[in-house]
Amino acid sequence: MAEITSYKFRVEPQNVDFTLRASVSSIIDCMLNVAGEDAHKKGFGVDVLQGQSFTWVLSRLAVEVYRQPQQYDNIEVDTWVNEFNRLSSTRNFRMRLGDELLASGVSQWCMLNMESRQVVDMSVLKDVYERAMVAEESPISSPQRLRAIEPATTTSRPVVYSDIDFNRHVNTLRYIDLIFDALPLDLIEKNNGLRIDLNFIAEARYGDTLTVGCLSDDNVWQFEVSSDGGKVLCRAKIEFK
Amino acid sequence: MAEITSYKFRVEPQNVDFTLRASVSSIIDCMLNVAGEDAHKKGFGVDVLQGQSFTWVLSRLAVEVYRQPQQYDNIEVDTWVNEFNRLSSTRNFRMRLGDELLASGVSQWCMLNMESRQVVDMSVLKDVYERAMVAEESPISSPQRLRAIEPATTTSRPVVYSDIDFNRHVNTLRYIDLIFDALPLDLIEKNNGLRIDLNFIAEARYGDTLTVGCLSDDNVWQFEVSSDGGKVLCRAKIEFK
Repeated sequence: MAEITSYKFRVEPQNVDFTLRASVSSIIDCMLNVAGEDAHKKGFGVDVLQGQSFTWVLSRLAVEVYRQPQQYDNIEVDTWVNEFNRLSSTRNFRMRLGDELLASGVSQWCMLNMESRQVVDMSVLKDVYERAMVAEESPISSPQRLRAIEPATTTSRPVVYSDIDFNRHVNTLRYIDLIFDALPLDLIEKNNGLRIDLNFIAEARYGDTLTVGCLSDDNVWQFEVSSDGGKVLCRAKIEFK
Repeated sequence: MAEITSYKFRVEPQNVDFTLRASVSSIIDCMLNVAGEDAHKKGFGVDVLQGQSFTWVLSRLAVEVYRQPQQYDNIEVDTWVNEFNRLSSTRNFRMRLGDELLASGVSQWCMLNMESRQVVDMSVLKDVYERAMVAEESPISSPQRLRAIEPATTTSRPVVYSDIDFNRHVNTLRYIDLIFDALPLDLIEKNNGLRIDLNFIAEARYGDTLTVGCLSDDNVWQFEVSSDGGKVLCRAKIEFK
């Protein structure tokens, strides 16, 4: 058994949006960077996995944002793993400004064989994982499984250089940017708390075209990002307070 | 007279591109953040200027990149101001990994009255500026004045939420992303040194459409970014080694 680990950050100019608050995308970016750094510290980072041609893949994520921090705020992110089975591992996040809880997150990861593109049985990491587990509940409910939508509006654009990661796949953060770019600006400006659920289903590559479908009903916004031939890449649901 | 000031950074996962090296856009982002922080420290940051409804505007920039740092490299950025007249101020940059020079930059700034949108005579800052001047030459030649081009290819897209800064204008970095997104991927992958000259001419707003025109001749690539009605926003020239 292990303890919750905390990481310190300052909200930099490149993290804030036009409201001078950290964007939801940059809050999630911060959590995912913490996930990478903490996995590395605990002995199961991508650096170790790559020796066996394995890598971590984010499958689902839920984040609740209570208040977006301001530019130059000194924030802390707590993280801990509290569940792990053959197919999935759960990592949790709390973002704080001192004692004030700003955001919470629950992420579910699987392990992929980069050569066969097949999911790997995580029992191989059992020993190192058990030492890293923390006996603390997840701060919010698990990410929902999201169903297909019939979009009311769609927009499309090609995958470009600034979208892709070292696998030449579209970076996870870009889906979140695409989704928030499809929202009315005043909804983002007046945001006073939200929950976002994300399902990552497939990966887009350089040369593909991304299509973002959107359907809204009152304070609930649903999205489906797909690529050529209607291949579904990512689904999201945002519920504003 | 003052001394050259240095700032330390680590190249984070969000700064690297698919080659796992810091993108040129993130190298420039780093220099511009250093400019903001150093101006703040020396008493002429946007925080001071905003009290008088003034702000800094980047008018021209030249950056030479000799080698892009790798993910997790601990780099240093030296900065100094060495020229200043009524209309323009020159700030210089050297990015280093230990003693190895990775990139150099020269930036020219003017001061804008945010209410009248007119350029301000910088004599108002003369005293504080003179104390911040450093007797050290610029590391590379000044940014070139770039002329109009007849683009061979163009692409367009609307300004979106993730493009805009607190003025609801398109963030400077986005022009650089747009320009690099228009380059062939293998040119970026094989990059072994380049010089980029940038002229910032006008600002785009949320709701505008951005058009990127491109013209290439051997190892020289020229760009013009414009908005609705052909209004020129930014010109750039990249020369690959």
